Amino acid sequence: MNKDPQSATQAIVKWRQLLGDEYVITDHEPLKQASTATFTTSATVIAILKPARDQVAAAVAVAAEYSLPLYTISSGKNWGYGSRVPSTNDSVLLDLGRLNDISGYDPEHHLVTVGAGVTQRQLADFLLAQGGMDWMDCTGSHPDCSIVGNTVERGFGHTPYGEHANFIGAMEVLLADGRIIKTGFGRFDGAKASGMYKWGLGPALDQLFLQSNLGIVLSITLWLMPKPEQFVAFYLSAPNETALEQIVAALVPLKRSGVITSLPHIANAYRVLGGMQQYPWPMFSNHPVQFPLHGDVLSQLKKQWQVGTWNVSGALYGTKEQVANARKQVRRALRTVKGARLNFISDSLLRFIEIFQKPIAFITRMDIPGMLKVLRPVHNMMKGQPSAQFLTSSYWRMKTGPDGRFDMDKDNVGLIWSAFVAPADAKNARQLMDIVDTVLPQFGFEPAVTLTLLNERCIDAVVSISFDRTASAPDGKSWDELALQCRDKLYQAMFSHGFYPYRTDVGKMAEMVHCGDPQYLQVLADLKHALDPQGIFAPGRYIASASEKFTGAVSN
Amino acid sequence: MNKDPQSATQAIVKWRQLLGDEYVITDHEPLKQASTATFTTSATVIAILKPARDQVAAAVAVAAEYSLPLYTISSGKNWGYGSRVPSTNDSVLLDLGRLNDISGYDPEHHLVTVGAGVTQRQLADFLLAQGGMDWMDCTGSHPDCSIVGNTVERGFGHTPYGEHANFIGAMEVLLADGRIIKTGFGRFDGAKASGMYKWGLGPALDQLFLQSNLGIVLSITLWLMPKPEQFVAFYLSAPNETALEQIVAALVPLKRSGVITSLPHIANAYRVLGGMQQYPWPMFSNHPVQFPLHGDVLSQLKKQWQVGTWNVSGALYGTKEQVANARKQVRRALRTVKGARLNFISDSLLRFIEIFQKPIAFITRMDIPGMLKVLRPVHNMMKGQPSAQFLTSSYWRMKTGPDGRFDMDKDNVGLIWSAFVAPADAKNARQLMDIVDTVLPQFGFEPAVTLTLLNERCIDAVVSISFDRTASAPDGKSWDELALQCRDKLYQAMFSHGFYPYRTDVGKMAEMVHCGDPQYLQVLADLKHALDPQGIFAPGRYIASASEKFTGAVSN
Repeated sequence: MNKDPQSATQAIVKWRQLLGDEYVITDHEPLKQASTATFTTSATVIAILKPARDQVAAAVAVAAEYSLPLYTISSGKNWGYGSRVPSTNDSVLLDLGRLNDISGYDPEHHLVTVGAGVTQRQLADFLLAQGGMDWMDCTGSHPDCSIVGNTVERGFGHTPYGEHANFIGAMEVLLADGRIIKTGFGRFDGAKASGMYKWGLGPALDQLFLQSNLGIVLSITLWLMPKPEQFVAFYLSAPNETALEQIVAALVPLKRSGVITSLPHIANAYRVLGGMQQYPWPMFSNHPVQFPLHGDVLSQLKKQWQVGTWNVSGALYGTKEQVANARKQVRRALRTVKGARLNFISDSLLRFIEIFQKPIAFITRMDIPGMLKVLRPVHNMMKGQPSAQFLTSSYWRMKTGPDGRFDMDKDNVGLIWSAFVAPADAKNARQLMDIVDTVLPQFGFEPAVTLTLLNERCIDAVVSISFDRTASAPDGKSWDELALQCRDKLYQAMFSHGFYPYRTDVGKMAEMVHCGDPQYLQVLADLKHALDPQGIFAPGRYIASASEKFTGAVSN
Repeated sequence: MNKDPQSATQAIVKWRQLLGDEYVITDHEPLKQASTATFTTSATVIAILKPARDQVAAAVAVAAEYSLPLYTISSGKNWGYGSRVPSTNDSVLLDLGRLNDISGYDPEHHLVTVGAGVTQRQLADFLLAQGGMDWMDCTGSHPDCSIVGNTVERGFGHTPYGEHANFIGAMEVLLADGRIIKTGFGRFDGAKASGMYKWGLGPALDQLFLQSNLGIVLSITLWLMPKPEQFVAFYLSAPNETALEQIVAALVPLKRSGVITSLPHIANAYRVLGGMQQYPWPMFSNHPVQFPLHGDVLSQLKKQWQVGTWNVSGALYGTKEQVANARKQVRRALRTVKGARLNFISDSLLRFIEIFQKPIAFITRMDIPGMLKVLRPVHNMMKGQPSAQFLTSSYWRMKTGPDGRFDMDKDNVGLIWSAFVAPADAKNARQLMDIVDTVLPQFGFEPAVTLTLLNERCIDAVVSISFDRTASAPDGKSWDELALQCRDKLYQAMFSHGFYPYRTDVGKMAEMVHCGDPQYLQVLADLKHALDPQGIFAPGRYIASASEKFTGAVSN
């Protein structure tokens, strides 16, 4: 990369001419913000570009001319994994937020094309406005998060269309030399099945551009889920720690036989409580705080919110008969979970609870309005309606919650997400959880985890390290420092047990691009060399530099 | 490529040293056979190598040393698409038939690793021997066809695991420079979810090596279907041509809602009759033969075999209740198909028919034993048991059927398969069929077609051009010549209507690697240059030469 500061200055002049001053940001404050994530990072941003769709290639050409690294963001809300912070120092951020076009909605074949800047909220609203006959799969992240941004990171949601990488019909990709290609059948003029048949003819390229720096994904043609005839959510909470094994053992066969087609989420108490409230600071006004929270206080919160040690949220989708049948089978299977409460909540039951929340609260002596604050968003999310509710759990250790603008980076929220994949069985789920339960408390963090049945064979465990970046940690340490140490120890422990990440934060990139079989790493570098020989795109993101040479044995 | 005959001679000496004489075939007759497909081709084979697993890399190194093109085959039974005939002249065949190891069967997570040479029969037998708790998805091709060979061509079968490209857990790939990589999590030492989580970390490479010449797939870790609690096959036959639209309109919503999870096949009368008998030569002993067969004779055969103008075979998989429910819904949906007969055939009903075939035949005056010859294999195939029965349809125009060795190339069977993708809706299915019905008869071929609901959004139409390579065509023309003309006309007509192939025969490769957006073609060439700069692997197969430069507008 070019280290001459002159060239950056010259490039910025060109970008200003190209995009207009308004869309080339070089002021100190926004650049500082863009270099701030929810944990300690080091890379800085020297400019932010906000091109329109037809300016992106020209903006990239300038970067190539001056050999400046470009780091692409869509909405920039990659919270917990690095926000907008680039993988290499002195990067120029390429913000694709203006590529927010929704096009080509095809209700007959259930597809739609979204630009890189289209947010969850935007697509959900669009589909509702079109009659609501197709649902998107959304994640628990913010409604203003980009769909393409999540998909290119191989994010996942909750519905039968939850493993996003599987539901890409086609993509438009900009390459480093300015070429724009359409994947799948998009290569052929007027191909009717374009976007419907995803592989195209010859090698299929889509997956090359996920978790990648080989090209910039400008748009994705998404497969949408036809609104099912019937939808019922189900929730289970179980009191015992060993419920985890029982839940996994009960749900996996249902997933394998297709009774459950969606992605059930299994969350421990810490994870769920984070969505209900913040750390109970007032309860510690007279005692030293607990890091992590445990014992009686934890029990009290669990009781107050009716939260189990383990909690499942899932949903059944299908025809009326399919759902009725699945409901019976889910009930039967989960009966094996000792002491568990299982509830099925349909649209109409939820409405009933909402209408009669006061009397129900009176009778049950439970905080029904408080619960509805979470229940309604979860219910809606599993029907493709995003909500900001879930991310509030990231404010767990903060003294105040998010305000309307919801800017975790600016709010000094501390958050690192680490996501590991385990075989979908009780033994592995337990082994993985034991690691989390051991490592996180050592550093003073609550071991908050969600395990998702990603498909019939895998569990994806997302571990949250939550903290307040402005607070001081015990013994004069910094939470920022503890969080990175904890994350590193967690990775190490996971690796030594054979659990690897499906996705990684920007701070772990440098290590991960050198992790694994050197022959494999070399192939990635070869591909980088073929498609981006100058290394303009996000250097060091998921792929090491094209010029590196890998030799020797597997290193992890 | 090296054109010096000396180098071939020298390379062969080295290969003989490396593999032993037995495994380096250079005799005229087998080479001639290997250069023979089921239609006219021109490329020749100069040697056949049959390395063991640990000799493959060294064999490739010799080819690289002498710049000789290697064309990989697994079982070599790519009938209808080119058999063993390479995509470039003077190729050395790399026959991976000895890589027939089945390993790593994991009944808990339902996966198994098959070497490139493992046949359908071998895996089916293996799984039965293991207790039959997992089923493979097999194709209608021969039991001795390679599973890897089919998968790397993105072949498809009948069960819920029918779209094979989706069920690859991991692969072992040999690159042109001798590196062997494991895809997915295989890059990480001891990764427990290897083979279960298919994407790995960073860009996912599997799909690069399907329909590709970028590497040689040595083995695939396949996802297997857990044996369902219940299985019921269904068959529909409908008398009217317009049944096609009604069938598609009825089945697609069931596929989209997940009531049908498998891949129903919709075949026209010509396609089904081919499986029942050969062209009815004896009926024309006193009349001039009909090419294509039509009118009264066709009607008579349809009546005799109870074959409809359109015929569906499909199956329901799941729990007892799911299947019972799906059965009701399939019945309800297919009621819209005018004059159709729908039968559900369970394991027990089929056994009953087999036991009482004579009295049933007597009562129904139908050729029950004849029908069972097809019904039993179809039933078993949909349960993962391959059969040679279906390929006999390729002998339609021959005077005698296949013998035990089943060698279509040697038997001079004429067959070209062309497979086009259409959006899954009635209008497109009709438009596609109209093209087939117009083009094939013009050249004297029966328009035999199977349309498969590949997934919720696409139909894949496989068109058979069947002939006898030894027979003479009317007006002194050759069937070989007519077949190629017909295939070319069919492609042309399909393209002009926006239907493109999912796969193509070796004769069409040269055209197809130049077809479509030049920017896209250039990316493929760039990847070829990155991974196989010498162009050792299957030059011209799905990807043009690395040295070609693509410019200009979309060409198709």
